[in-house]
Amino acid sequence: MTHELSAPHHDGSARCVGTSSPALGERVPVRVLVPDAADGSAWGGEVHLRQLRDGEPLLRAAEPDGRDPGGTWFAVEVEARNPVTSYRFLLSGRDGAGRPAHRWLTGEGTTARDVTDAADFRLLASEGPADWVADQVAYQVFPDRFARSGAERETPSWADRAAWDDAVVHRGPGVGRQWFGGDLDGIAAHLDHVESLGASLLYLTPFFEARSNHRYDAVTFDRVDPVLGGDEAMRRLVDAAHARGLRVMGDLTTNHTGVEHPWFRAAVADRTSEEAGYYRFLEDDPIGYETWLGVDTLPKLDHSSAALRRRFVDGPGSVVAEHLRRGLDGWRIDVANMTGRLGPDDLAVEVARLARATAHAVSPGAWMLAEHCHDAAADLVGDGWHGAMDYAGFTRPVWAWLNGGYPGGPGEEHGLRFLGWPVPVPVQPGGDVVATMRAVHAAMPWRSWAASTSHLDTHDTPRFRTVTGGGRSGLADLTGRGRDRYVAGLALQMTLPGVPTLFAGDEVGLTGLDGEHSRTPMPWDRPEAWDAPTLDAVRTWGRLRRGSVALRRGGLRWVTARDDVLVHLREHAEQRVLVHVARADHEPVRLPLAALGLRSASQLVPLVGGGATDGGDGTVVLPGDGPAASAWALEG
Amino acid sequence: MTHELSAPHHDGSARCVGTSSPALGERVPVRVLVPDAADGSAWGGEVHLRQLRDGEPLLRAAEPDGRDPGGTWFAVEVEARNPVTSYRFLLSGRDGAGRPAHRWLTGEGTTARDVTDAADFRLLASEGPADWVADQVAYQVFPDRFARSGAERETPSWADRAAWDDAVVHRGPGVGRQWFGGDLDGIAAHLDHVESLGASLLYLTPFFEARSNHRYDAVTFDRVDPVLGGDEAMRRLVDAAHARGLRVMGDLTTNHTGVEHPWFRAAVADRTSEEAGYYRFLEDDPIGYETWLGVDTLPKLDHSSAALRRRFVDGPGSVVAEHLRRGLDGWRIDVANMTGRLGPDDLAVEVARLARATAHAVSPGAWMLAEHCHDAAADLVGDGWHGAMDYAGFTRPVWAWLNGGYPGGPGEEHGLRFLGWPVPVPVQPGGDVVATMRAVHAAMPWRSWAASTSHLDTHDTPRFRTVTGGGRSGLADLTGRGRDRYVAGLALQMTLPGVPTLFAGDEVGLTGLDGEHSRTPMPWDRPEAWDAPTLDAVRTWGRLRRGSVALRRGGLRWVTARDDVLVHLREHAEQRVLVHVARADHEPVRLPLAALGLRSASQLVPLVGGGATDGGDGTVVLPGDGPAASAWALEG
Repeated sequence: MTHELSAPHHDGSARCVGTSSPALGERVPVRVLVPDAADGSAWGGEVHLRQLRDGEPLLRAAEPDGRDPGGTWFAVEVEARNPVTSYRFLLSGRDGAGRPAHRWLTGEGTTARDVTDAADFRLLASEGPADWVADQVAYQVFPDRFARSGAERETPSWADRAAWDDAVVHRGPGVGRQWFGGDLDGIAAHLDHVESLGASLLYLTPFFEARSNHRYDAVTFDRVDPVLGGDEAMRRLVDAAHARGLRVMGDLTTNHTGVEHPWFRAAVADRTSEEAGYYRFLEDDPIGYETWLGVDTLPKLDHSSAALRRRFVDGPGSVVAEHLRRGLDGWRIDVANMTGRLGPDDLAVEVARLARATAHAVSPGAWMLAEHCHDAAADLVGDGWHGAMDYAGFTRPVWAWLNGGYPGGPGEEHGLRFLGWPVPVPVQPGGDVVATMRAVHAAMPWRSWAASTSHLDTHDTPRFRTVTGGGRSGLADLTGRGRDRYVAGLALQMTLPGVPTLFAGDEVGLTGLDGEHSRTPMPWDRPEAWDAPTLDAVRTWGRLRRGSVALRRGGLRWVTARDDVLVHLREHAEQRVLVHVARADHEPVRLPLAALGLRSASQLVPLVGGGATDGGDGTVVLPGDGPAASAWALEG
Repeated sequence: MTHELSAPHHDGSARCVGTSSPALGERVPVRVLVPDAADGSAWGGEVHLRQLRDGEPLLRAAEPDGRDPGGTWFAVEVEARNPVTSYRFLLSGRDGAGRPAHRWLTGEGTTARDVTDAADFRLLASEGPADWVADQVAYQVFPDRFARSGAERETPSWADRAAWDDAVVHRGPGVGRQWFGGDLDGIAAHLDHVESLGASLLYLTPFFEARSNHRYDAVTFDRVDPVLGGDEAMRRLVDAAHARGLRVMGDLTTNHTGVEHPWFRAAVADRTSEEAGYYRFLEDDPIGYETWLGVDTLPKLDHSSAALRRRFVDGPGSVVAEHLRRGLDGWRIDVANMTGRLGPDDLAVEVARLARATAHAVSPGAWMLAEHCHDAAADLVGDGWHGAMDYAGFTRPVWAWLNGGYPGGPGEEHGLRFLGWPVPVPVQPGGDVVATMRAVHAAMPWRSWAASTSHLDTHDTPRFRTVTGGGRSGLADLTGRGRDRYVAGLALQMTLPGVPTLFAGDEVGLTGLDGEHSRTPMPWDRPEAWDAPTLDAVRTWGRLRRGSVALRRGGLRWVTARDDVLVHLREHAEQRVLVHVARADHEPVRLPLAALGLRSASQLVPLVGGGATDGGDGTVVLPGDGPAASAWALEG
């Protein structure tokens, strides 16, 4: 089968679910589309909802509820009985031999065998993320490396001053000390550029005073680093952004502080102090206290201290509250997957719940986003973080599909690693990649996915341009197909659910071998070296995302997942968009027009790219070249 | 591929894991077997452990650690850093084109794509189930229907007296009232029979005074029902059982009481009473209080009442403690999946934790087993219930494989249902069935699976003999292949991990169309009607289980899962057993002797059945007929 348009479908979008944030006890209408060609209807079968209610599975019959081109909708109600209500569908009938058979429909699609509850759809009976979140395109800035305002500043005591065009030090003791001197007023001066990409939100890595260029070793959570321009520069940046309708997210290190933070100094000075309870000291340990991954300059916070929680995450006097009150639109929470987890104690969900409640109280629309480097689902099923950085469900699968940077590969970049793993990034076919995406996202509520961020790369990874085979370092090698693979990844980022988050510099073709190496100063002074086709592509796909309600808020149906080509459909009451992304030349995908609800191939209106042709037999044929990406609006 | 002996393997058994109950912080040695034919070694690849530590994934290289026939062991340590530590393995190398590739090894087996954490192996840093649990074969008795002692008793006020050979009333208002008068002394008189089956543990459905024959509507948790012989008869039964080395489990209804329970009467009489807090009263509701599934005679308990918890599950004065102190060896907890779950509140895990701690305090070896009708994994990852009734991972998949009772099927039994579901039981091929078993068990710690129970049927389901096509009602139709399919299921039950639990009467061929209909009096007085071959099979397979350390405690490797035949291997340091179960005639399974660690087919020593022959080319050929089941010890 070259397409899955005959597969029964449900997702968490508004097309299928009455509300993603029901009141406790509310009965929520949900719908399943059963295509005419689906086995279920061939059996003359029935559709049941299976939900848990107080821990007990209950089955309830769904009833036909209108037609869609090519299929029938079945409707039923889910009772949002518990804070988390999980449900799936059972399509039952007879197999070819007349014996009873069924298929389950979960977030991973349909399966004929019985399944666990792991991929059930989930409704959360709690306040959801603000409505604006799903509409964003974010732009990540590492403040030291984006732009200098020109203000003269003394070199900080911890720093080695660098010239803007110096090579990035990415190994050895100088990594954290190399100081390029980017600042907040420098960022404010380039908001035109940010907007030109279609971006609507600035995500800044840490800006509190610290002892390194990355500032994940905070010495305060009260003051913006004077080296960045201080609190006043932050106010100017936030005001300038807000004046344009841009939003600004901060980055909060809830898991640890720097060793020079006054809390830690007080703790060390007096083991009976309140602050001593903020950390966990160890006997018979070479470091003597819990740290982030053994780094002695990063003592780990112990959230079992209620005093720490009040100071940091809980209530109007907390750090979380203070900077939202000053104007931030949300927080990205650093290593949220570790925050509150410490040996026997697991307070991660509790810390998330407190931080979110605090945020909602002072700034009802605030977005609370967790850094999470693996399967985040268990941390997203509840009333904690609204979403997570989607390394597991987006970055890694996209890398595996478009990886050209392996030893001997077209990128010729040796030793590329994913978040410090000791093994290379694999190369995987499209079917496996989509299966991983579906599995990761099935485990989380749809609204949590929609409030998560999709990244091709970050300040913690190689640049995606290097992953795709874009060149050794610095600016991209402008020859070869690394750029085309980059754009293929970009097209996935801009057309799948989750808030697309660009890492500043990707748009001009920057490369980087690892996280530190990717923290490249933005080459504002060398526009002639920018990769203009990449910049065009980012602007084209970024603006497409911002302008398309289907891409921002639609449901998702996977249509085709072959080794070298992926096709998906984003559907919203107001718009439907078909997206085609290829990593290589391939046999063209041929789709039945009727299953798409179309009469003619001319109803595929190109948004980006194009090249769909009439197959002459009631089908449309999508282009067979690659790497390439196209999107069409489906009219009628 | 007709076998999976080339698949890398790890499971939670002692062969692969140093301890299943480590201390917090303990470093636990674990091992993976990588067969020589596995792709991983063909790549010349590496093996890494991937574990979570305080929420962060860490990869650690495994090192070669000796040879097994046909493969290499790799060893590494898991740090049991947190109360639950999840881990899996990464086998990395190169694909045929020289590109980086890998496979994950989880509880579901190997997969080339990236996976969620759902099927990770799990270590629990808490006290585990008692050592004796994994060695049991259990025998479930519904006291009213097993045997009468002959003691004269008045008909209880709630009851309709029946003669022992009356048809079971299984529909309408008489279902709960029909009273056959079995009692505890009746059970005690038949312990020879129980032992003859290889059973070592009696599981009794409720014995507290109630207002029905099933007694799930308790009016007390203090007194054994006088109709069963009262507390004294219970003491006699427990003493008689213990004298033979048999153990006795009770059945505790923690989710609800009967409407005539004094607690509920006190609650209704005085809404300000302590007891009123044990239940949840509702305004604007036709019943007026929360119930079990809307049944007004079964008011649901509200475990948010600390007073209720102390009275019922928490501490030495609780019901849980009292009857363990009197001699019970454990509790089966009725609807544990609902207990403590009520709208906004989810205290299920907390109630389980309290109940288990209470049990361990008064009776360190007590077994706490949860009734659970679906995916129990989330309730088993922690320090609550030791295990669960494995409907999801055993009963349903086995039914789907051996179902002959569908309309038009060989069983000619219409309308068979699984636990009240409104759809028929499906018919599924062996591959799907094994995939479901693996998925369900992968989600739970191995030690929880080993302390769970596997049932072909219970007092809540049709009799398995009816599912397999054994006859309409009463005693089995002795012709046809329903018996052979029954024995195929029995062989799976007795050879897979989990405590096999026989439902009294199955062994003589009883049938039943639904849970109520299956509560058939044991036909002691009609031995000529017993199905002697079935009884022989139960005794043969039951005793095999009891006598085989590999079947009781070994690891599990799936070897073959085809439509009509399943082959698995149970491996222990002291014994290895190969099991072959077929539901129909099939092309014989051919296995390479070397991969089994054998030199000759004669090293397969039949334990039950047999018929393995030398394939003449370094293989052994297993028999091709079915339904049938065989087991061999692998010698050498």
